[in-house]
Amino acid sequence: MTEEAEVEINPYPKSGSEQQAPQFLRDVIFHGKFKLLKALTPEENTHCQNGLFFQDGQRRVDYVLTYPVKKPGGGRSSRQSVQLLAENAVACSLRRGPHNGGEDLRHHQAQRAGNPSCPQSLPMADLEGGALNGHEDHKAFRREEFEGKLRDMGLELEKEEVTKIPGVGFVKIHAPWNVLCREAEFMKLKMPTKKVYEVKQSSGIVEKISSLVSKVLEPLHPQVEEHQPKNIKHLSHTFSREKQHLFDLSDKDYFFDTKTRSSIVFEILKRTKCKAKYSMGITSLLGSGVYTAAYPLHDGDINEESAEPNDRKLLYEEWANYSVFYKYQPIGLVRKYFGEKIGLYFAWLGLYTQMLIPASVVGVIVFLYGCATVDDNIPSMEICHPKNNITMCPLCDRVCSYWKLSTACGTARASHLFDNPTTVFFSIFMALWAAMFMEHWKRRQMRLNYEWDLTGFEEEEDHPRAEYEFKVMQKSLRKDKKSHHKMEKLTCRDRLPAYMANIVMMLLMIGVTFAIVFGVILYRISTKAALHMSSSSITRNHVQLTVKTTAAIINLVVILILDEVYGAVARWLTVLEIPKTDKSFEERLIFKTFILKFFNAFTPIIYIAFFRGRLVGRPGSYLYVFESYRMEECAHGGCLMELCIQLSITMLGKQLIQNNLFEIGIPKLKKLIRFIRSKQGAFQEEERQKKLQRYETDHFLEPFAGLTPEYMEMIIQFGFVTLFVASFPLAPLFALLNNIIEIRLDAKKFVTELRRPVAARAKDIGIWYNILKGVAKVAVIINAFVISFTSDFIPRMVYQYTYSPDGSMHGFVNHTLSYFNVSHFQEGKETLDPLHLGYPVEICRYKDYREPPWSATPYEISKEFWTVLAVRLAFVIVFQNIVMLMSDIVDWLIPDIPKDISLQIHKEKILLVDHFMKEEQRKIHILESRVSTGSKEVFSRSNNNITTMTHSCSQLHTKCTKASNASNDVFIVQS
Amino acid sequence: MTEEAEVEINPYPKSGSEQQAPQFLRDVIFHGKFKLLKALTPEENTHCQNGLFFQDGQRRVDYVLTYPVKKPGGGRSSRQSVQLLAENAVACSLRRGPHNGGEDLRHHQAQRAGNPSCPQSLPMADLEGGALNGHEDHKAFRREEFEGKLRDMGLELEKEEVTKIPGVGFVKIHAPWNVLCREAEFMKLKMPTKKVYEVKQSSGIVEKISSLVSKVLEPLHPQVEEHQPKNIKHLSHTFSREKQHLFDLSDKDYFFDTKTRSSIVFEILKRTKCKAKYSMGITSLLGSGVYTAAYPLHDGDINEESAEPNDRKLLYEEWANYSVFYKYQPIGLVRKYFGEKIGLYFAWLGLYTQMLIPASVVGVIVFLYGCATVDDNIPSMEICHPKNNITMCPLCDRVCSYWKLSTACGTARASHLFDNPTTVFFSIFMALWAAMFMEHWKRRQMRLNYEWDLTGFEEEEDHPRAEYEFKVMQKSLRKDKKSHHKMEKLTCRDRLPAYMANIVMMLLMIGVTFAIVFGVILYRISTKAALHMSSSSITRNHVQLTVKTTAAIINLVVILILDEVYGAVARWLTVLEIPKTDKSFEERLIFKTFILKFFNAFTPIIYIAFFRGRLVGRPGSYLYVFESYRMEECAHGGCLMELCIQLSITMLGKQLIQNNLFEIGIPKLKKLIRFIRSKQGAFQEEERQKKLQRYETDHFLEPFAGLTPEYMEMIIQFGFVTLFVASFPLAPLFALLNNIIEIRLDAKKFVTELRRPVAARAKDIGIWYNILKGVAKVAVIINAFVISFTSDFIPRMVYQYTYSPDGSMHGFVNHTLSYFNVSHFQEGKETLDPLHLGYPVEICRYKDYREPPWSATPYEISKEFWTVLAVRLAFVIVFQNIVMLMSDIVDWLIPDIPKDISLQIHKEKILLVDHFMKEEQRKIHILESRVSTGSKEVFSRSNNNITTMTHSCSQLHTKCTKASNASNDVFIVQS
Repeated sequence: MTEEAEVEINPYPKSGSEQQAPQFLRDVIFHGKFKLLKALTPEENTHCQNGLFFQDGQRRVDYVLTYPVKKPGGGRSSRQSVQLLAENAVACSLRRGPHNGGEDLRHHQAQRAGNPSCPQSLPMADLEGGALNGHEDHKAFRREEFEGKLRDMGLELEKEEVTKIPGVGFVKIHAPWNVLCREAEFMKLKMPTKKVYEVKQSSGIVEKISSLVSKVLEPLHPQVEEHQPKNIKHLSHTFSREKQHLFDLSDKDYFFDTKTRSSIVFEILKRTKCKAKYSMGITSLLGSGVYTAAYPLHDGDINEESAEPNDRKLLYEEWANYSVFYKYQPIGLVRKYFGEKIGLYFAWLGLYTQMLIPASVVGVIVFLYGCATVDDNIPSMEICHPKNNITMCPLCDRVCSYWKLSTACGTARASHLFDNPTTVFFSIFMALWAAMFMEHWKRRQMRLNYEWDLTGFEEEEDHPRAEYEFKVMQKSLRKDKKSHHKMEKLTCRDRLPAYMANIVMMLLMIGVTFAIVFGVILYRISTKAALHMSSSSITRNHVQLTVKTTAAIINLVVILILDEVYGAVARWLTVLEIPKTDKSFEERLIFKTFILKFFNAFTPIIYIAFFRGRLVGRPGSYLYVFESYRMEECAHGGCLMELCIQLSITMLGKQLIQNNLFEIGIPKLKKLIRFIRSKQGAFQEEERQKKLQRYETDHFLEPFAGLTPEYMEMIIQFGFVTLFVASFPLAPLFALLNNIIEIRLDAKKFVTELRRPVAARAKDIGIWYNILKGVAKVAVIINAFVISFTSDFIPRMVYQYTYSPDGSMHGFVNHTLSYFNVSHFQEGKETLDPLHLGYPVEICRYKDYREPPWSATPYEISKEFWTVLAVRLAFVIVFQNIVMLMSDIVDWLIPDIPKDISLQIHKEKILLVDHFMKEEQRKIHILESRVSTGSKEVFSRSNNNITTMTHSCSQLHTKCTKASNASNDVFIVQS
Repeated sequence: MTEEAEVEINPYPKSGSEQQAPQFLRDVIFHGKFKLLKALTPEENTHCQNGLFFQDGQRRVDYVLTYPVKKPGGGRSSRQSVQLLAENAVACSLRRGPHNGGEDLRHHQAQRAGNPSCPQSLPMADLEGGALNGHEDHKAFRREEFEGKLRDMGLELEKEEVTKIPGVGFVKIHAPWNVLCREAEFMKLKMPTKKVYEVKQSSGIVEKISSLVSKVLEPLHPQVEEHQPKNIKHLSHTFSREKQHLFDLSDKDYFFDTKTRSSIVFEILKRTKCKAKYSMGITSLLGSGVYTAAYPLHDGDINEESAEPNDRKLLYEEWANYSVFYKYQPIGLVRKYFGEKIGLYFAWLGLYTQMLIPASVVGVIVFLYGCATVDDNIPSMEICHPKNNITMCPLCDRVCSYWKLSTACGTARASHLFDNPTTVFFSIFMALWAAMFMEHWKRRQMRLNYEWDLTGFEEEEDHPRAEYEFKVMQKSLRKDKKSHHKMEKLTCRDRLPAYMANIVMMLLMIGVTFAIVFGVILYRISTKAALHMSSSSITRNHVQLTVKTTAAIINLVVILILDEVYGAVARWLTVLEIPKTDKSFEERLIFKTFILKFFNAFTPIIYIAFFRGRLVGRPGSYLYVFESYRMEECAHGGCLMELCIQLSITMLGKQLIQNNLFEIGIPKLKKLIRFIRSKQGAFQEEERQKKLQRYETDHFLEPFAGLTPEYMEMIIQFGFVTLFVASFPLAPLFALLNNIIEIRLDAKKFVTELRRPVAARAKDIGIWYNILKGVAKVAVIINAFVISFTSDFIPRMVYQYTYSPDGSMHGFVNHTLSYFNVSHFQEGKETLDPLHLGYPVEICRYKDYREPPWSATPYEISKEFWTVLAVRLAFVIVFQNIVMLMSDIVDWLIPDIPKDISLQIHKEKILLVDHFMKEEQRKIHILESRVSTGSKEVFSRSNNNITTMTHSCSQLHTKCTKASNASNDVFIVQS
């Protein structure tokens, strides 16, 4: 061994030009030696570092594929499986040197890469010498073909058939350095260069304050050590093999982090296709069961026993932990570990939660203002005043009787809490808050894009999905019989049935939602009527409470059940559509799910806000459903109070049950089931856990199923926070409390319960931003209507400024009540107990703007009604347009790209050009001096030509590079 | 000469390895020889191809700087000026070989590039030996420094002091190949590679139809031959010197077209800075008069006499020509010649004009419908009916008398043309049209981005403007005295005065607009009153016509004058602000100009639409201005008619006078002035014109002043087309007619009258898109208000569906008129001629919804008023939200990226990766075979190492490249 190493260090002992010995050769030698040395410390590598590396302990496992193995047990050792791979290679390279080790393999692969005719023969070679079962031939054949192609792409594979998990075989994939470089270049990855620069902090007052603030907020930052000081930044440049000298490649094993490596391998897996029958990428191979799973490995264990620190453990301690709930998230680390897409989700969630803080503070203040002013509120004072002796018309036919308005004192006081002038202010505030949030997010996104070197990255059309390709294949097969033209895509006509099914099902589902809401209304009306007729006075007294509570609970349960149903329906419908790419699939799924869940959550609330109590009719000609049930009326305080109750029950219930109970409970339940199942199995859980390799442990985790449910949950919550905020100022507070838990809950899920997702690059949160924007837009209109139609804000204003004799609110209650002559009741609808109040009633009052019985047109809609309506509508127009204008101004005032980022981008560009220019000049200088000294005699005769050459030496330099590419060997030989 | 050439062909006759002779050397030799050969045909190059090339006839002039020369006349020959340059170089290179020619110069330049200390000494050397005037020392010193720096950057300069234009010196700049390559790499220019692929046209029905359509439209396409067939496309890749083999460099002189070359030079000019006092780029050098102008050259002459075809001539014939008005524009050629920014403007203008066609067709149909149904219109029939004997209240105090409604018959009939139910449809149509236009433009833009290889291009923060840098320098100098901290930017506090001035001035200007509108109102009121009092009955009869016409003309003149004033004010205010970059300057200027011009154009119209006739009061208590003038009323047909007249006069007047008269007339006038002036000069125009070189001819052209005025004109027009379209359905037609001329007019200006602009890359039309979007948004609201408040649409609807006894419009006119008892007139306001109609009047009618004199509350606003108002407001809400929703749906349904483009982008990516992979494998193959054959003996001992090497051969390949960069000389010597 020692001898060999020595030889390696100085392979050309007789070469005189030692200082001119090519750097790359020394590099290769050094690298080789280093690897050798590493391999010589076998203590650490016995277990291949817990399965994170190949058997040789050198090559990192970047990706794992699993496939079903029919024959479990010890027929073949793992050594044998490695041998199998070697044999493949050997079979290909005409069996020279049959005793090659791991190092040798690479040689053969590289050779095979240059010989494209080889892979086709591979499966045959394998079938000859292999011990394959006759039954699963087909799948194994596919696998062999696919793996052969992967090797052609330069990937290195290691099979592990005999594992501690029976029936599962593993293919471990390693991407060697050259493949990583090549793919990084294709993917246009931006990597940090060696060149650093200082981000200057100018010493203005603003900066001083901001540094002070950041000092105060220091304990809120997670304890994740940054690799570099904050004001030093590496210049980034798109990775290119020709520009390798720019990058710090001192440690090639860690230049590309594990996330990048796995995403590079995944990119190759997606691109590589078997040609059998129809082209199949990894997705279709997974779909057809050739492979059962495909995932990259986690960085390591999170348990404390393993001593070595890793990013996953750090994330577990500093992020996925309830005890750090008050801290910022280590977004940089999250992105480093999970990739940009997931990083963006958590960054978004973090910003949303942060933005909820001011919103909930203002909301609480608004609520407290309501509490504080409840005693100064003239309308409720008037209602509660003991001398108030307004007689109201009965609330239901026959069984109900006249009642005194003063009994509604409690409701009137309570509704003031939510229906006071600050509500208007709060609605405007929340609309602007939403605009601010969107703007801040745009800026945050831009900043993250910059920090994560995504500027210049453009998302591209993805590879088609397996289902789509399958369908196209089917179609072209069908067509082939008729004509010989090959189809390449699905047309609208192919998709028409799916589209029709989509539309019909969506309408049906929305219809179901409406029907259920209507059912709940009927339940409420009929139960109320039934309970009113009950003889027990206690029951009668608790009518309101009983009915409201049960109805709200029914509503909640229905919403929860339908939520799950709708999720499934949306997915099914999207599968029917066969969208072309994953991105398109996701967008269509999201759109449908959003529509259904949105209707599901908000239909009952919209009913209460805008329809309840409006279609009542008037005493003497009430509106009836099914000719016997009178439509619901709101309590005297207006429907705002009921809207508020419904909102809070739905929101809190959904959050508590769905988000927390489901999300915490179901994983626990699954674990329990798995535990029970494993007890029935051959192994004992505990023992196995200890021995398991990384790729085996990860196999037991749940696969990552996309971010859609997480986003969806938050968007619906965003709806609750913004849509009806005029009626429920405490919504932001509840949302805030929920989200603080939600962040850590999601983090825990990602770190401990899911297989590591493949890192996906993303510049933005995609369709979610548009949905957020849409919700914010709708929120403005809904709030405008809630304020003007659901609350009593406008009637109060109109009374105070036009009808009030002294400009105060005194007399407002009286003004809103119309008169009714009890003799005008329809036959059989009058109350059975007219003397309930102790005196005979001739005129009763009801809440509406109608002419009194003694006018020329009794019970007609009055002029006041039209005046109030006009003012209400005017308010909606003014509110909507002003708020929209203000949102636009906010949008326009806050630049999308933060000033410092745009400056820094500009600066970096200048630095980079500078850097290149200097390098250029240095090169020219070197070349020039050498030309003028070293080769005088060669060029001396053609003096004129030197000038030309020297002049265009930069051009020449590139030429040299090009020329030397082709004649490297000559160079090597002559050195 | 022959001998030399021979020597060049085979400089290494003794080298044995001829086939391994470095390709680059042969290239250089060949290139050199080629140049030599070219130079040997002096007949063609006598005039340096009319000044498009340097004196040597080889190097193209890519850019021209001009500077003032104090001493005109023949003291120095042009040979001398070349000598001067040589001297500089000589002074720098320590005076070896003082008799160098042009070729030699380059050698020195290249050397100096490696020696950064040299340029500082240059001006001194120059001052010693030069013949410079003592007076303009300073500027010349700057010039020398700047030009030295330019030469350091690799540019080649040629001075031309003695030209046919006295007092102007020219610096011609040429960018050699290596500089072009370097800068193209920095600018990340995407260039077409050698690799082509076929864009497949699938043979579906849709495609067949589209091909048929394109065949029909064939004669509409300009006759500009495309370089390649339509279905073949070159793959593009960011230019990189290391990947030169990808590109087709067979003709290096034309690989970068003239537009790219000039923009590359401009990029260097912007970046290069003198260090004297404070850093100055070309913009500040221009600002301080060191240089007087900087421009690239046009491609050639447009006159027919010169035989050689060039792009400019082609553009002149196929684009800037009124005779091809019906054709599409050759946008590709426009972009090739003027760059992407100007290309985008014309593409936008073209699309806008195209989109106006359907809009004007629908507009004309709507107008014709109005014409056709005018006789079936019941309200106007009722007014015109001879039996109609409604007596109206007098239109002015005292001098006017009662009048019969039937006299308003004409107006009523005319207003039906514009105020009919189709108007509502047309408003919705136009709102959707605007949304469609925006969407189409987005798609068009995306398609152009793809075709022009701009995908992936990101606009970056520009260099700071000279004024900004000057201000920062001033500030830091001031600060330096106090502290030693260097300031780097202007803070808000520095800008506060400018911002304050801006706000104050903007408000003042808007105030002026309002004042003028108010003035015109006063003019109308007072003139009308005066004319009414006139004794001549002819005058009295023409009152309306006279007043309206004069007022509209005054309005138009004021708008035209203020437009110019506001343009100047906006520029002045923006200069005050000292924005940092050109982009920011442009945006601020555009914003201010837009605000001012928008208010200027639309304030009178908004007054007529929404305020006129609304603040009149009622008979008996009219509103008075200055206590004597009654506010204006609308004619009986409603204000829509007057709005329509005002709109058409403003729009047509503006277009005719401003756009066409100004734009055609003023250049003609300028030419005339120039002609007269030149006659006074020493030369005769004609004679000079013939002799002039290209750079001299171009010097006489107007400099390019940006696209802002062109866009602004179109945006204001877009405002006229969309904002009040409900009242003037013919607006799109007028706009269309104007734009057909406008396109060719602008084209002519760019091709013949302006210096060639520096090509600027742009992905979109920037702030203009946002302004368009804003105008479209405002248009929805304004149209909603015009329909519901200005037109009689809502009252008619309300009458028909609620008040009409038989559901028809009969009786509508009577319903809208309130009653007034003439005895309730204020003292002194009653008419002087109560018996004008021939009978005594007790009750007269006026248009309003008020209670009759005999009600309990006489002359109070009636319930009908509130009902109509509520419906009007409801209509606004419904209209606005539905139209906005429909726009959003249009936005959402039409994908921003056309399907075929996104597919093609995806395909190109795959093709490119494929191409690279193949190349990779080919390289590996070559390397491998050579390693295994050629160098067996060298590596035989370290067998293990070969494997490592071969395995990582791709890695090795790049290493080799790197290594060979540093050791080229060794290579050269040993070959």
